[in-house]
Amino acid sequence: MGEMEIRTDLALESREGVASSLDVKRDVICSSVEKLQGIKVSTVEIASEKAQKLMGKPMGTYVTIEGKPVTEQEESYGELLSKELSLVLEKLLTKYKVSSALVVGLGNRMVTPDALGPRTLDYLDINRHLDEEYPITVSAIVPGVMAQTGMETAEIVQGIVKETKPELVVVVDALAARNAKRLGCTIQLSDTGICPGSGVGNHRNAINKETLGVHVISIGVPTVIDARTIVSDAVGDFHGKHEERYEELSRWFVTPKDIDESIQLLSRILADGINHAFSGNKTS
Amino acid sequence: MGEMEIRTDLALESREGVASSLDVKRDVICSSVEKLQGIKVSTVEIASEKAQKLMGKPMGTYVTIEGKPVTEQEESYGELLSKELSLVLEKLLTKYKVSSALVVGLGNRMVTPDALGPRTLDYLDINRHLDEEYPITVSAIVPGVMAQTGMETAEIVQGIVKETKPELVVVVDALAARNAKRLGCTIQLSDTGICPGSGVGNHRNAINKETLGVHVISIGVPTVIDARTIVSDAVGDFHGKHEERYEELSRWFVTPKDIDESIQLLSRILADGINHAFSGNKTS
Amino acid sequence: MGEMEIRTDLALESREGVASSLDVKRDVICSSVEKLQGIKVSTVEIASEKAQKLMGKPMGTYVTIEGKPVTEQEESYGELLSKELSLVLEKLLTKYKVSSALVVGLGNRMVTPDALGPRTLDYLDINRHLDEEYPITVSAIVPGVMAQTGMETAEIVQGIVKETKPELVVVVDALAARNAKRLGCTIQLSDTGICPGSGVGNHRNAINKETLGVHVISIGVPTVIDARTIVSDAVGDFHGKHEERYEELSRWFVTPKDIDESIQLLSRILADGINHAFSGNKTS
Amino acid sequence: MGEMEIRTDLALESREGVASSLDVKRDVICSSVEKLQGIKVSTVEIASEKAQKLMGKPMGTYVTIEGKPVTEQEESYGELLSKELSLVLEKLLTKYKVSSALVVGLGNRMVTPDALGPRTLDYLDINRHLDEEYPITVSAIVPGVMAQTGMETAEIVQGIVKETKPELVVVVDALAARNAKRLGCTIQLSDTGICPGSGVGNHRNAINKETLGVHVISIGVPTVIDARTIVSDAVGDFHGKHEERYEELSRWFVTPKDIDESIQLLSRILADGINHAFSGNKTS
Repeated sequence: MGEMEIRTDLALESREGVASSLDVKRDVICSSVEKLQGIKVSTVEIASEKAQKLMGKPMGTYVTIEGKPVTEQEESYGELLSKELSLVLEKLLTKYKVSSALVVGLGNRMVTPDALGPRTLDYLDINRHLDEEYPITVSAIVPGVMAQTGMETAEIVQGIVKETKPELVVVVDALAARNAKRLGCTIQLSDTGICPGSGVGNHRNAINKETLGVHVISIGVPTVIDARTIVSDAVGDFHGKHEERYEELSRWFVTPKDIDESIQLLSRILADGINHAFSGNKTS
Repeated sequence: MGEMEIRTDLALESREGVASSLDVKRDVICSSVEKLQGIKVSTVEIASEKAQKLMGKPMGTYVTIEGKPVTEQEESYGELLSKELSLVLEKLLTKYKVSSALVVGLGNRMVTPDALGPRTLDYLDINRHLDEEYPITVSAIVPGVMAQTGMETAEIVQGIVKETKPELVVVVDALAARNAKRLGCTIQLSDTGICPGSGVGNHRNAINKETLGVHVISIGVPTVIDARTIVSDAVGDFHGKHEERYEELSRWFVTPKDIDESIQLLSRILADGINHAFSGNKTS
Repeated sequence: MGEMEIRTDLALESREGVASSLDVKRDVICSSVEKLQGIKVSTVEIASEKAQKLMGKPMGTYVTIEGKPVTEQEESYGELLSKELSLVLEKLLTKYKVSSALVVGLGNRMVTPDALGPRTLDYLDINRHLDEEYPITVSAIVPGVMAQTGMETAEIVQGIVKETKPELVVVVDALAARNAKRLGCTIQLSDTGICPGSGVGNHRNAINKETLGVHVISIGVPTVIDARTIVSDAVGDFHGKHEERYEELSRWFVTPKDIDESIQLLSRILADGINHAFSGNKTS
Repeated sequence: MGEMEIRTDLALESREGVASSLDVKRDVICSSVEKLQGIKVSTVEIASEKAQKLMGKPMGTYVTIEGKPVTEQEESYGELLSKELSLVLEKLLTKYKVSSALVVGLGNRMVTPDALGPRTLDYLDINRHLDEEYPITVSAIVPGVMAQTGMETAEIVQGIVKETKPELVVVVDALAARNAKRLGCTIQLSDTGICPGSGVGNHRNAINKETLGVHVISIGVPTVIDARTIVSDAVGDFHGKHEERYEELSRWFVTPKDIDESIQLLSRILADGINHAFSGNKTS
């Protein structure tokens, strides 16, 4: 059983698969706090190269806000999630002491579960072009996906960062989870940036502090499950027995049937949380 | 093994599961013809109540045009599929001798794999409101899905049919297939209309000749696989062993990652085929 | 000077042009109330056939909520407008004693200033398909425009009303104003329905109590000015002097450059107001 | 009478207003050729600083392809326009000898008449990310408008150009015309790039050879008329007499009522023309 089996963008889930091989003080440091209405905020710090390798995720801090799935009826619940996101984000902003940020909405607006990034930016308060002064100057870009642009997203973001010099890049993206129960109700925030492919190392195409030269915060919500995960979960060692078929499954994704409504609500929740943190009004 | 296992809207696939119990002359009559570039046109006639019950599909004729998956590079291949659709449709139009048609684009424009119906109508030639004379007068409606309207689609279509009196209703919809290889490259055309749920019988919510009082042709392309299918295929009798988990899977669908591009191409192919058949210029 | 000059869907503006010929007790009865933050609620009752003819609008009551233009910075101001809309709507609902409503979103989602109706419905709470009980059962339809459907909107709505039997139809539409200052900040609510063309009489294509057999409330916000208005205002009697050119102008509309943002905010304001009135929670 | 009166992005129209003050050999060199079906291809070369100043457009060559308005019925007419665009573009590509291009779709996808750039890119053949060899490597970006990004479009494009090093930038944009008859049926292609504001000089925010360091071709189609133009045309010296009102009009634009259909057709025509020129198959 290797990292191939761990089809998830959530550090919380990556850890589940390999917990027994890791030291909870040296390799992975975890904590979690219960909040109002069953919201749980967990922190996973991947602290050693061994943990990085086993979990398939770069070293750094991952904060996860877990709630129950949001639906249109519970607008106030969405506000609770926004507020938690805002609190976590404010802590990082205070630590980094930045006065300008570029928010990048990754994904493809035309594919519903992949539209979270672009649609979050629809609700974002942009002010870099305005004359007034703001605690944090905010700009934003929806770079599109490679099939639309022919360029690596990292190339586009690097070019814009060099030209417009923000002190922080915030990347918003849809994620894949392993456990279907986490779809649409878990927000992950990390300081590690985004690494396409295997997910570790200083790749040319990563969007992180190494490649951009500025702090990078990534915010994501799982909206799909990899088809391989669903079958592996059901069948046990499917990968070992049916390698060819397993690879074919990588061309598919699995998503809930009410995904459009979820994306609409989630993009609003993320934007509200980010707007509040950037506005400089402390969340109480 | 019951009909629950047969997660498919394609008559061709329904038959595969139960072929051994059916008489090829009395229950199901099949034929198929090879066309240019590997395109295969098959006809499945569900001819007995026994076949209807075993296959979970209403009695009637199902024509399937199977090709290879369409991609942007092969525009001429799309034209071949359009032409085959047009030929099958013309045969039915000649048989029904209609002079007016209402085309209904089922599905949800905001959910990519479900947008085939609405997006096909974007390319349709509508003429009922124009002054000139046409071989077939064409009108069209995108009724929306129940979560958007609060109404059964059948209610909306029945109301409009009674008011505007078309002689034919053509329903365009995205389908679910069992075999992933049929996604995005198989067009099914039938004279049975659309039956939500179990799929058989004179339901109040069906869109068919019984409920509308006019001929109904349904045209569909599989764009998703039911998550249950994918797991069942991999695990054998998953349903029997894990009933609760199996039901949970019904909330998901599985779709290819390049679904947006596929829907764009397929909606154009369907519209071209329908436009040509309605225009009265015989396809050679 | 004839009705041709009065290019407006607002009764308030229609009256301005012909006020001197009308009796303020018998023909047109007007009143207005100042509310918080400069919001003004005016009522124009067109009470005689003479007024109907001179104003080019059917007899009935027109309530206008006038504010200042809404912008993204003033969310609380939008809430004030929603609340006023809700209050006016509740009064009518109490009078009509209806327990079910069909909301119709007129216009073309693809043309920004005409997308107000469809986009308002995106935020509407629909419940007719749900099992629970509600004070008012709500369904909704976006019929599309004639170039898309080939049908008169009235035909579509009549068919659906006969089939699903709501006790009230609410029509949401973008309007044309004469005075540019009213674009995007004036909500008109009337009990007269919608009359295409000259705007008066029992037309086959009207959407009103005569044609549908149920109460009809129309809600609209001006989002465009007719190009003829802008030129006429600037030039005085342009119509008389340049008839041909004047007619050509009818093919154009004039709209503010930030129309996309306005429509986004306005559709939310209208939906909030309608949702609140339908939910049965009295606005205080 | 100053440049304020010349509300047009078309060099052809700029010249009309000031033709008498310019020398046809030294200042502005014009020629035009009649093609099939009434298509007219004109070239305006702004050759002196005097002409640049009087016409309010940078020195360079402007080619205009004028046809009749395209409608859905005349697909073959659209192909003629595509072909002419392709021919003009091929000539420039041969002259510049480039092997890579970045196509920039300017404008706002959410505002119909401003969506020409983004929607043209929907149909563009992108290949920079593919493994095969192509005569010209094509990448593309939709940067968004300043209200969405907080950044000057020029900053975004400069950043991406420095990072990805294309040898040519092609900018696609919706234009404003003075004469309503040119809306939706005139394609302008120039080698001068795009200059926001007054339109002349080496502005920091220009997208041209000076700011990007590579060849820039701009392609545009007029989709709106400035509201000031329409009134000025009707009233003569409106500007002089009513300065305040005149400025207010700059907040509006005027567009045809069938703009959605036009943009759909035009974006396809532009993409077909660009795709063909880039593919290296000579247009006969």
